[in-house]
Amino acid sequence: MAPSAVTVGDKDVAHLPLKLGGKQNGANGHSEQHVDELQMESHDKTQYVLGSFRCLIADLCQQFKMGHPGSAMGMAAIGVALWKYAMKYSPENANFFNRDRFVLSNGHACLFQYTFLHLVGYKNMTFEQLTSYHSDRWDSYCPGHPEIEHEGIEVTTGPLGQGIANAVGLAMATKHLGAVYNRPGYEMVNNMTWVMIGDACLQEGLGMESIQLAGHWRLNNLCVIYDNNQITCDGSVDLCMAEDVNMKMRASGFEVLEVEDGNYDVESIVKALISARANQERPTFINVRTTIGVGSANANNAAVHGAPLGKEDIANIKKTYGMDVEKTLEVSQDVYDFFREAVPRGRQLENDWNDQLSRYSKEHPELAAEFKKRMKGEMLDDWTKYIPKKEDFSTEPTPSRKSAGNVCNPLAQNIGNFMVGTADLTPSVNMAWKNKVDFQNPNLRTACGINGDYTGRYIHWGIREHAMASVSNGMAAFQKGCILPVTSSFFMFYIYAAPGVRMGALQSLQVIHIATHDSIGTGEDGPTHQPIELAALYRAMPNFLYIRPCDSEEAAGAFISAVGAKDTPSMISVARQNVAQYPQYSSREGVQKGAYVFIEEEDADVTLIGVGAEMCFAVDTRKVLKEKHGIKARIISFPCQRLFEAQPIEYRREVLQNRSKAPRVVIEAYSVNGWERYADAGFSMHSFGHSLPREYVYGRFNFDADKIAAKIKPLVEDVRSNGIESLRGEFRDLNADYVRDVFH
Amino acid sequence: MAPSAVTVGDKDVAHLPLKLGGKQNGANGHSEQHVDELQMESHDKTQYVLGSFRCLIADLCQQFKMGHPGSAMGMAAIGVALWKYAMKYSPENANFFNRDRFVLSNGHACLFQYTFLHLVGYKNMTFEQLTSYHSDRWDSYCPGHPEIEHEGIEVTTGPLGQGIANAVGLAMATKHLGAVYNRPGYEMVNNMTWVMIGDACLQEGLGMESIQLAGHWRLNNLCVIYDNNQITCDGSVDLCMAEDVNMKMRASGFEVLEVEDGNYDVESIVKALISARANQERPTFINVRTTIGVGSANANNAAVHGAPLGKEDIANIKKTYGMDVEKTLEVSQDVYDFFREAVPRGRQLENDWNDQLSRYSKEHPELAAEFKKRMKGEMLDDWTKYIPKKEDFSTEPTPSRKSAGNVCNPLAQNIGNFMVGTADLTPSVNMAWKNKVDFQNPNLRTACGINGDYTGRYIHWGIREHAMASVSNGMAAFQKGCILPVTSSFFMFYIYAAPGVRMGALQSLQVIHIATHDSIGTGEDGPTHQPIELAALYRAMPNFLYIRPCDSEEAAGAFISAVGAKDTPSMISVARQNVAQYPQYSSREGVQKGAYVFIEEEDADVTLIGVGAEMCFAVDTRKVLKEKHGIKARIISFPCQRLFEAQPIEYRREVLQNRSKAPRVVIEAYSVNGWERYADAGFSMHSFGHSLPREYVYGRFNFDADKIAAKIKPLVEDVRSNGIESLRGEFRDLNADYVRDVFH
Repeated sequence: MAPSAVTVGDKDVAHLPLKLGGKQNGANGHSEQHVDELQMESHDKTQYVLGSFRCLIADLCQQFKMGHPGSAMGMAAIGVALWKYAMKYSPENANFFNRDRFVLSNGHACLFQYTFLHLVGYKNMTFEQLTSYHSDRWDSYCPGHPEIEHEGIEVTTGPLGQGIANAVGLAMATKHLGAVYNRPGYEMVNNMTWVMIGDACLQEGLGMESIQLAGHWRLNNLCVIYDNNQITCDGSVDLCMAEDVNMKMRASGFEVLEVEDGNYDVESIVKALISARANQERPTFINVRTTIGVGSANANNAAVHGAPLGKEDIANIKKTYGMDVEKTLEVSQDVYDFFREAVPRGRQLENDWNDQLSRYSKEHPELAAEFKKRMKGEMLDDWTKYIPKKEDFSTEPTPSRKSAGNVCNPLAQNIGNFMVGTADLTPSVNMAWKNKVDFQNPNLRTACGINGDYTGRYIHWGIREHAMASVSNGMAAFQKGCILPVTSSFFMFYIYAAPGVRMGALQSLQVIHIATHDSIGTGEDGPTHQPIELAALYRAMPNFLYIRPCDSEEAAGAFISAVGAKDTPSMISVARQNVAQYPQYSSREGVQKGAYVFIEEEDADVTLIGVGAEMCFAVDTRKVLKEKHGIKARIISFPCQRLFEAQPIEYRREVLQNRSKAPRVVIEAYSVNGWERYADAGFSMHSFGHSLPREYVYGRFNFDADKIAAKIKPLVEDVRSNGIESLRGEFRDLNADYVRDVFH
Repeated sequence: MAPSAVTVGDKDVAHLPLKLGGKQNGANGHSEQHVDELQMESHDKTQYVLGSFRCLIADLCQQFKMGHPGSAMGMAAIGVALWKYAMKYSPENANFFNRDRFVLSNGHACLFQYTFLHLVGYKNMTFEQLTSYHSDRWDSYCPGHPEIEHEGIEVTTGPLGQGIANAVGLAMATKHLGAVYNRPGYEMVNNMTWVMIGDACLQEGLGMESIQLAGHWRLNNLCVIYDNNQITCDGSVDLCMAEDVNMKMRASGFEVLEVEDGNYDVESIVKALISARANQERPTFINVRTTIGVGSANANNAAVHGAPLGKEDIANIKKTYGMDVEKTLEVSQDVYDFFREAVPRGRQLENDWNDQLSRYSKEHPELAAEFKKRMKGEMLDDWTKYIPKKEDFSTEPTPSRKSAGNVCNPLAQNIGNFMVGTADLTPSVNMAWKNKVDFQNPNLRTACGINGDYTGRYIHWGIREHAMASVSNGMAAFQKGCILPVTSSFFMFYIYAAPGVRMGALQSLQVIHIATHDSIGTGEDGPTHQPIELAALYRAMPNFLYIRPCDSEEAAGAFISAVGAKDTPSMISVARQNVAQYPQYSSREGVQKGAYVFIEEEDADVTLIGVGAEMCFAVDTRKVLKEKHGIKARIISFPCQRLFEAQPIEYRREVLQNRSKAPRVVIEAYSVNGWERYADAGFSMHSFGHSLPREYVYGRFNFDADKIAAKIKPLVEDVRSNGIESLRGEFRDLNADYVRDVFH
């Protein structure tokens, strides 16, 4: 292939007219925007800007002798193509609704993004801020990886694979909102999503799951730009990769473009980007050959990835690019002039869109009113009225996964903000509502008879739990509150999704995860499917609600807490099996406080902490304790530790009765880690589970009221004789024996 | 494509001679085995067996009205091709060293494997056992997913994607051991690894990571058999998959074969399997078209995936296949006769191999002696002598990641059992030793100048943490103790690897994970790279050692514990930054007990629990408490909770001084969950971290001896006034304020 060429498959597309945006039937542009012939800046000016940019990056890393210069330098021409020519955004209003979204999935190259944000005129990204990268400033807008809190950053990236997944979610949001709100002549939502990736996103499983989904859904508004520098931390990509990447991306449903000289050939990159926006069929993958640390003596070497280049090398780079060796952190007025037209261009873009919105509001007033609610992140209806009342629930034993469905289905059916999906467990998780329409590429309707299109709000994620969580983060990040993603799978498989769930918590993105088949009650599927230790992770995760309701009423409470937590993702953890209903005790209000008195008992000898599907053991044990052993027990229901911690100390003390002489015993078929804060003893799991039918597996691990009571009795007697003080300071595992008895 | 055809790319390979094994230069066979023309059984007999098998599966699921019949029925012909014709194994000795390994990655179809194990005559898999599937028998060999503990099962599968990763590890083990021990005329290790997958392994990120690696390493001894029935739980695969699978597998470096009629055409499947074994270039992917639940009225429907078919349907299936409708769980003598020749064939296979081993032992006595050690799972040398002595370590502040390298490198360099790798962090994790040779496809040496071949023991996993852990499980499962895999990455990214790490713990597979850059001390990379909550998961995980050494001496202790734990995987969690060395206090013996007295103090007012990289805060706080506040503190070093729990109660009480009046305070920059068992108060993290240089990030979250001491002082005073009893029952978070102060 000749240098400076862009190829689409076998076709040469270098002949593509250099147009930006314009009226492109069904493609991703702004129909009302003026169609301008693209004015490329002169070759010399462009090369001067590229050189300046690269020297600036080198200087920024040299300042504090830390940082990642290599990729940012290598991608300079891509950045110029994006921010100067191809991308639609408004520096004066980073949150302009219909802006193109840009995601830096190779987040370590953050200086790339920070520097362009500065150059094109984002207000907060002052030069002073830019130079705070890796400084000791706690209020820096330039952290070591891009963070969503800062202007111009769409999502927090860094853990590799996450950004590309988020980008898929952002593109889904556009497709969905466009399908729902656009009308002929009114393309209210039609932005592109651009995502930069390095090799990692083509290696990380999450990246590949996300690529599959983008191809499946034919997200033609997504463009993946591959910074193909053939270098990772370990050295040459040859050390660990021997794939035909282009072939693979085509197999996954992407249009594949190649740019031979990604270091300097801005024009070819621009052509490829424009071609991506114009694509009406499928997402685009642009394979751009770059050189990591281009200009450095160590260019094309892993050494430039994560360490500063050193003064001598930087001096040479400046010479190479014709910069003044004596000057550091230099941005000339010419460079600013090159970029700052982005400000009026963005203003115009926004004005045009606002004009369109005004006309749309007149022609489609009801739709526009709804659309404006979505823009503001408001729910389209009063969601509280769809939560079933206590009396709506059956009092017969009910699987709590079914209860969760009973609560979630009306919300999802009636409120357009909800987008609910499952990792291929529709028959098991009860999240599908009657007459649901799938989010799908509309062509599948004719091709395969699938009831879906982009207006659909039920998502078949396939067997891709990680992507389910991380792509959902992207949907939630599109505009705060606009879309409320709900995911679902077996609880055990949220261990696959954990990195994505964490990123949601870190970014304060509201996503609700419905984790069914929790605990050993899952039964026959055995220890591979029985979570023992996973709750410890989610209970320890900052800004996250792990809620384990014990019955339908508590499931309602769990949803009220989760839907109300606008800045916090939640997991509602429910059981596969039938669980007893306790309408006389359970309380949705109690759930919202994290824990509450379930059954009070005056002068109790012991407080039992019941949790989720194992509440039945607390209730039954209380009975046995009373009838067989003359021991009085009160019960606390404790569905969510974090909600409880947020209560006033007085409430917490009242519930726990921490000044009483009665010991507290938690009963849960998980590792007990974390409960020791609230309990003096635990009846818990000390091994993985076992494949047995539910009614046997609990018994196998001594979860049986008689056995539990028999272990609590001596504890109570000990306290009667020696006082509660004798107990405290040494947590007691009441069910630890079985590890020795059963397994050895 | 015509039915009953096998195609390799565009080539028709139906002309392949029907040979099993035989002397295939460089391919995967048993060179000494007799070359026989394959005698295929008659068409009628084969179809009878297939019908019998399918009816048996249907009956087995109907017994207890539970189970997964669909895939097992659909894959019947594949099973016949494998166990009757293509696979090399010995039912009388399931552990025959050079057996082919078979992995059922779609583990829910376990009845498929159990039934073939029974039919070919594995001793433990009696008919009685076979019929215990989904029964209440706790000692069933037929759990809901295959489990490694049982005869004929190579690895525990079920969580999708894990099996194919394990299979890659098993194939690596063969390649490596073969490269090290085979000699001309002596193919001591040359078995095939066969792995059955469903759609999930082509969707789960882990599956795709593993496929990439197998292609990269050109594991021509691996054959992936795709049960392509186009159905998942949600229904048609079209709901969530639109890939050209064959094209993708070719792009990933696989030979792709197709079998059109996988339901009945055993011969074509056999041809494809033989072709896979003969492949000298690359791994093979056999795309076999099957029908889920074939024979059932609901065939080709998700309904047959995970539920019994019902009596009526089963009666019809039996009619269809010419079986007696009145009989259930019927296996005729003809069926046994069809399969049981596997027993003498296996015996012969083993005898031949043993003969070969005898000759090999004579011709290559030293090599054979070493090989026999590996067979027995013994270390090739006394590993303890390679652990540095305390006096070998620098007393200057040292990054504990460097300490871990200093301990691990001599082990890895000198002991052939070690295979050490990293997820693309060679420059950061310090696990590469001098003159290491990479495990690589040997062609890369000439093609790219990479110093590697299959004898190599350093593994570049690429940016694939999950595959790193799960493939390592496969290597460890090849033969217990034969290979000791060591993985490495940033601790934060072990959240990606968690599902694999868990499967290792569940299977008692010894793998050592080196998790560097733990805690917020990681610094500039920011909250995406600073683990806060992840330790809670690994501390709660059964059969797992999470060890956080505080200095070089403790790092030595951590390795001693980890290498000694033959049935338990470990994670050694170390810091990026310099940490102080405490040769006067730290103790490798102490680490092996989980916790120990670091600095004793008579009549201490408080016990500080120091952990890992935050030990310095405990030591410095002790000093401040004494000098500024007149408070006497003792310090416990607490690197591993699980090792401590295994100590006698007397030791634990002695260390904790749980009868003393001094409160215990844990200091660790993680979520405190799980420490409440040992401590009355914690100085910990209550949010995600922050991007700041290490020397600032700790301070940002009040990790500072003065600030910590200031919080401990009132606690001590409270206890002095009101007694320790006043404290207990209510855990105190001494560092919780910052969440309000800083973030709100």
